Amino acid sequence: MPSNYHNFRNSVPWLLIFLEAAFIILFYFFSDGGASSPRISYPGFQLVNRLLIFGFGFFLVFLKRYSFSSTGFNLLIIVLGVQCSILIEALADLLLQRREKNALESIAEATVSMTAVVISSGAVLGKTNPMQLIVMTIVEIIVFHASRWINIMFLKLSPEMSMMHVHLFGAYFGLAVSSRFSEPSPMSEKNASTPKSDLLSLLGTLFLWVFWPSFNSVLLPRSFAAICNTYFALAVSAVTAFALSGLMAKDGKFRMTHVHSAALAGGVTIGYAADKINHPWIAMILGLLASVISILGSGFVQSCLKPPLKIHDASGVHFTFGLPALLGALARVVFLVIEGWTHLSSLGYTIMFTIGAVCLTISIALITGFITGLILNFRLLKPTPVSKYFEDQFYWEFPHLAVGF
Amino acid sequence: MPSNYHNFRNSVPWLLIFLEAAFIILFYFFSDGGASSPRISYPGFQLVNRLLIFGFGFFLVFLKRYSFSSTGFNLLIIVLGVQCSILIEALADLLLQRREKNALESIAEATVSMTAVVISSGAVLGKTNPMQLIVMTIVEIIVFHASRWINIMFLKLSPEMSMMHVHLFGAYFGLAVSSRFSEPSPMSEKNASTPKSDLLSLLGTLFLWVFWPSFNSVLLPRSFAAICNTYFALAVSAVTAFALSGLMAKDGKFRMTHVHSAALAGGVTIGYAADKINHPWIAMILGLLASVISILGSGFVQSCLKPPLKIHDASGVHFTFGLPALLGALARVVFLVIEGWTHLSSLGYTIMFTIGAVCLTISIALITGFITGLILNFRLLKPTPVSKYFEDQFYWEFPHLAVGF
Amino acid sequence: MPSNYHNFRNSVPWLLIFLEAAFIILFYFFSDGGASSPRISYPGFQLVNRLLIFGFGFFLVFLKRYSFSSTGFNLLIIVLGVQCSILIEALADLLLQRREKNALESIAEATVSMTAVVISSGAVLGKTNPMQLIVMTIVEIIVFHASRWINIMFLKLSPEMSMMHVHLFGAYFGLAVSSRFSEPSPMSEKNASTPKSDLLSLLGTLFLWVFWPSFNSVLLPRSFAAICNTYFALAVSAVTAFALSGLMAKDGKFRMTHVHSAALAGGVTIGYAADKINHPWIAMILGLLASVISILGSGFVQSCLKPPLKIHDASGVHFTFGLPALLGALARVVFLVIEGWTHLSSLGYTIMFTIGAVCLTISIALITGFITGLILNFRLLKPTPVSKYFEDQFYWEFPHLAVGF
Repeated sequence: MPSNYHNFRNSVPWLLIFLEAAFIILFYFFSDGGASSPRISYPGFQLVNRLLIFGFGFFLVFLKRYSFSSTGFNLLIIVLGVQCSILIEALADLLLQRREKNALESIAEATVSMTAVVISSGAVLGKTNPMQLIVMTIVEIIVFHASRWINIMFLKLSPEMSMMHVHLFGAYFGLAVSSRFSEPSPMSEKNASTPKSDLLSLLGTLFLWVFWPSFNSVLLPRSFAAICNTYFALAVSAVTAFALSGLMAKDGKFRMTHVHSAALAGGVTIGYAADKINHPWIAMILGLLASVISILGSGFVQSCLKPPLKIHDASGVHFTFGLPALLGALARVVFLVIEGWTHLSSLGYTIMFTIGAVCLTISIALITGFITGLILNFRLLKPTPVSKYFEDQFYWEFPHLAVGF
Repeated sequence: MPSNYHNFRNSVPWLLIFLEAAFIILFYFFSDGGASSPRISYPGFQLVNRLLIFGFGFFLVFLKRYSFSSTGFNLLIIVLGVQCSILIEALADLLLQRREKNALESIAEATVSMTAVVISSGAVLGKTNPMQLIVMTIVEIIVFHASRWINIMFLKLSPEMSMMHVHLFGAYFGLAVSSRFSEPSPMSEKNASTPKSDLLSLLGTLFLWVFWPSFNSVLLPRSFAAICNTYFALAVSAVTAFALSGLMAKDGKFRMTHVHSAALAGGVTIGYAADKINHPWIAMILGLLASVISILGSGFVQSCLKPPLKIHDASGVHFTFGLPALLGALARVVFLVIEGWTHLSSLGYTIMFTIGAVCLTISIALITGFITGLILNFRLLKPTPVSKYFEDQFYWEFPHLAVGF
Repeated sequence: MPSNYHNFRNSVPWLLIFLEAAFIILFYFFSDGGASSPRISYPGFQLVNRLLIFGFGFFLVFLKRYSFSSTGFNLLIIVLGVQCSILIEALADLLLQRREKNALESIAEATVSMTAVVISSGAVLGKTNPMQLIVMTIVEIIVFHASRWINIMFLKLSPEMSMMHVHLFGAYFGLAVSSRFSEPSPMSEKNASTPKSDLLSLLGTLFLWVFWPSFNSVLLPRSFAAICNTYFALAVSAVTAFALSGLMAKDGKFRMTHVHSAALAGGVTIGYAADKINHPWIAMILGLLASVISILGSGFVQSCLKPPLKIHDASGVHFTFGLPALLGALARVVFLVIEGWTHLSSLGYTIMFTIGAVCLTISIALITGFITGLILNFRLLKPTPVSKYFEDQFYWEFPHLAVGF
């Protein structure tokens, strides 16, 4: 039995080398670095880059024996996925005869679209081996771009708008994949956090919270409004997170996981409409609703839906990203209705297309996620046994004993 | 007795919800998002935002059992205070018929003014419950803006200059509030740091150290000079902090708390005059003096003044922010004297106004801080008993046992 | 014997005060703050500043009992070195009648050149006392600038290009210094990491990884290309680091130290040629080769070379910075050959000068490093006894017992 794992482990490096060689060859043919000057700023890109690498890297670090993997594999899938995503876009530019993008723009766009994969990886945190993570990354990023193209070409979404479906796509893809993995034993003491790991995870949450306005504005044209609206939504979300967390507990104590997820919900929701909002109070109400949905979701919906569907959502991506994104999509429809009231003829189409795009994105995410979950559990990929879930030592050398960590 | 606490705890969420509802309604009437383009840059604002959220969040994390509250409540009071501060300014713009500010400018200015509250909260760290913190935040931010208006309208300070009183105001307000709280038992083992918490606090100090030039320059017009002068002052402060820390100890060892506070003192001092200094060596001398005052203060003045006044300064805000800010104000007067030597007639007024502004700010801070301290100890707000000081578990759910943390 | 240490310790503060006084006086005479507007942006400088202060501060934190010193002394030597470096450059500007630089430019350039000292300090991490570190900082920064001037004046390198020798110079200077220090006892349990310290060190690595594009572009004119090329090289490096780390271990597990060093190797290598590369795939191949050299180096070369030369490289600077920089220099020669093929006459000179600059830099680094190592072991500087290596408590006051840390 152990020799099986050894064999599997030895195949991860070769898969990585093969992928990297393929990427370099494809870059040689398809991606040329683009000579045009970029339409986005370097500091803007930097903020989004840090949001993914630090923010999610430390946001996911809450499991007490899985901190190396949470942070390390997060870096690995981001760099793999960004290269893959740039290639897909370059291929599309070539096929569709689109304007060639500057290299910095390509990297920024690829980084934003990788958020979907990072969110999905959060849903199966601690249950996938690196092999499965790599396969999931490649499959998901390809499907996500396919879903975006369908949205852009058939449903007339703007490229920036279609990108805002990352949260929705990532959350539901991840949940569908997660449905194909066994639930961890409820008594497993490894599926838990320590105060120390919770604190590092809070550091990650603060990174995400602070950088979220950059995320929502990096690809949008009217970015100052997007920045301010996102800030207001996040501020109200954070306050509401504390308020509801205190209300949910019997003795009025705050729960750290509520703060982690609900403080970010406002940023996710506002992403869909950050450019349509002209008054701070609208952004604030959206932030409030997002936080409410996120915490109520984590309290009630989870306890109702989990037993029948048997989906274990390892880091609460459904409530942090899925539901708030749905609320954001709904808000966008409402804004479109209000805005377009005077042109009733075209209004119907716009709304139908917007709702269609959301439904289509969720459907694609659920179906392909389910299929990906099936693929990941092929014996070829040597799925991790349940007893080895949430365990760094299965993947990393520890020269030291991990006592008391 | 325990039911008392439960009742109190259950009132925090309702207070938060009430405040948030009030803020949204007031934003609806008073704040419009402003259509003018902002005079500050988004990366500039980002740096100040991070300074407060990460920097102070982790700077205050040194207590071994209070890390969740230090970081979490820091986020809570900042987001509440920023909203409140924007509303106050919007109201003032309306009443005084001033130019309406862009939303990003408003947020940046509100974030800078929240520094006062964050510093004050450091003085009572571990002793206040969330209810008291929220009340203190709202009261202090209103009083601080009132104090600023008096400075601007009657003492002819520029708006940027009046903002630099944040450190002074925050430190003395916090000390006055702290005088109304019981001192912790000197044998309490909870009022202590561990090497781990000291290291995270050092991370916070480094954040503050690196972002301080942004803080001093974000609202100033001649910002390149302000950036460089702040950097030089901080650099000399850090060196002096190590030198004096070694001198103060009997065996020449460094003390981490000295480095924490004295390395930042230069940045606080230079804030008052960053735009008046034309030569690096002047900034360097100020940084040196600031660091000296900070460390000598923490060594001698504390041991002399503390017993009679019975003020317990939980995180040394007097020496990190109060005394260096006083030195900065003094330095400003000296610069004004040197600069204005040729126009003796107007010189007197300028100096009188500058000194007057400092005295007024400190007086308002002390008096209102004292009153706030009295209010916070009303039985209605259920003050935390001394035995529960510095204790995360009183406010946060811990699903895990906090062993060995 | 203990009184000896006390005496020594008491001399560190006086040395710091003397240096700081000297710096302020020299700034008075030589550095004027420069009125011209800077050619670099403040956010650009900020990123490099953070790279050094946080990135290296936490990159070096992996030793379990040396975290205060790693981070704290890193800050100390950077602020000392930056002041010293600005003075040296100001003196050179005066002597050579060069254009006076803006203060922000001076600080940025000084920060970049301090990378050499920080890398060297990594090679002797845990073995030097603060006195030795300060002396090393001053000596190394002077020698590095001397080496740069020789490169610029006699070998016609551009100032930006000559700056890229920081990694090469820092690594070999550090190794030469290290050769004069005793090896730690192989059974010393202090020369080891814990999972917690490894995780903080990973945080530092991520900081370096994310900020490296800024480092390579801050002083370069065609910076967008430099940013993108560096990103691609780093991405491929990170993937290759995981792949080779898995291949090197018998059971296919990843080793954290491999990821730490090899993920950054691509950034170091590309520094030499970031402005010469027009296609992403070339940058990617360089990133791949850099990572391969770094990991193979750490595996094989170390085990072959270490016993005869008896050099103990405390944090693997040879493999993280030395070898990848050599590879980068080689790559630059290759690019020059390809580019200059048509002008055969001038090609020879250019290549000779480039190779000459590399050899000269390494020679100066090795010789002066060796001499510095001898100086640092003078009894006057009271070298740390081997039994006190890697021990925070020797330099820092611990009010608390360091149990379980």
